Amino acid sequence: MNSTPSAAAGPAPVGERNGPVASGVSDQHPGIVELFALLAYGEVAAFYRLTEEARMAPNLRGRINMASMAAAEMNHYEVLRDALERRGVDVVPAMTKYASALENYHRLTTPSTWLEALVKTYVGDALAADFYLEIAGSMPDAVADVVRSVLSETGHSQFVVAEVRAAVTASDRQRHRLALWSRRLLGEAITQAQYVLADHDELVDLVMSGGGLSQMTDFFEKLQHTHSTRMRELGLA
Amino acid sequence: MNSTPSAAAGPAPVGERNGPVASGVSDQHPGIVELFALLAYGEVAAFYRLTEEARMAPNLRGRINMASMAAAEMNHYEVLRDALERRGVDVVPAMTKYASALENYHRLTTPSTWLEALVKTYVGDALAADFYLEIAGSMPDAVADVVRSVLSETGHSQFVVAEVRAAVTASDRQRHRLALWSRRLLGEAITQAQYVLADHDELVDLVMSGGGLSQMTDFFEKLQHTHSTRMRELGLA
Repeated sequence: MNSTPSAAAGPAPVGERNGPVASGVSDQHPGIVELFALLAYGEVAAFYRLTEEARMAPNLRGRINMASMAAAEMNHYEVLRDALERRGVDVVPAMTKYASALENYHRLTTPSTWLEALVKTYVGDALAADFYLEIAGSMPDAVADVVRSVLSETGHSQFVVAEVRAAVTASDRQRHRLALWSRRLLGEAITQAQYVLADHDELVDLVMSGGGLSQMTDFFEKLQHTHSTRMRELGLA
Repeated sequence: MNSTPSAAAGPAPVGERNGPVASGVSDQHPGIVELFALLAYGEVAAFYRLTEEARMAPNLRGRINMASMAAAEMNHYEVLRDALERRGVDVVPAMTKYASALENYHRLTTPSTWLEALVKTYVGDALAADFYLEIAGSMPDAVADVVRSVLSETGHSQFVVAEVRAAVTASDRQRHRLALWSRRLLGEAITQAQYVLADHDELVDLVMSGGGLSQMTDFFEKLQHTHSTRMRELGLA
């Protein structure tokens, strides 16, 4: 699987099992509103977590980098809010049902050091991008545009790579510690994603409609595979 | 003085005392870099204060409004950082010298209720817009564009008016309390602005170069006058 978001702009596999339309999924699929609402809560939750974790930054430059990333999340939120409004859906009540899964993820992965906060930022961004790549090809164009603009990797988290690599090159102990941490992040993300999917059949159907996956387990296996790629980028593998 | 930012886009008074150029101030005036650096720190400080004060929000919608306003501050910060970069100035060391005045302002005006937080947001936005109107006419175009895009009222704080008016209409006690609070906000803002100006002659010269003011005291009197207008808007006068 290619890990650059730009690859998703190319020709996409067409779902042949469920969808009568070329994109594989009807624009009226009930999972679309749920997907936007889930992503919207994810953006707001990420905003507040990033600003809280920025307290651990060793200097003003680090705090500013975190604040810029947080601001990008809110810009994404506004794209999702507008997309929901166009579908006649009020974002706040729609997103509230996803609060517990996302708050649980963040509560269970509260970083205790600045390096842990950086790795969490990078892994979170990457998982979101993977998720986007997995589903974008099967979405109607207008939906794919929204998902692309909010989930493609922002590039903001590139500053993370240099700082983490420097730290783990200097210390084997840090490398082992952060490698364990990143495995925990992936595990908690998958756990919470499973809870969300268990409660929302329309989201499962949306993800599966792409036709690229025969089982939800394939989806989680792909996430683990690309996660390993990111760990190598950070010098943690 | 007109209090809408759009008025500043019209013909501006031309400084005749100091400036040989039509705009009244040379593009190389040393106060310009200082002004951008001051505003840059102001944006980052406002970002972190808004996100902290959002904890007092009674509901998710309030927290989201605060987060959107905070995100707008960081977008403004990025405009200032880019403008400084074009002048060969690294934003972080340049802005650090304004940290104490801005942090003191926020520390001395920490809201203790959600309504106080809302009023602070509105007053802060309005003071920034007043400041912009006062100096924009005398700036070279490229500088005025930067100042305009970061200081004109965002409209984000309009949600404040409805909430504050409802609260003070229902309670005289709240009205008196918030009127005192807003006077304190103005007082602390003027105190900290005076500290900043006392240490930075180039900023005083920049503000005065517009020609619209004969004394710094005129500047502060104007701020008090427009502040009264805002208090009426909020139902606090």
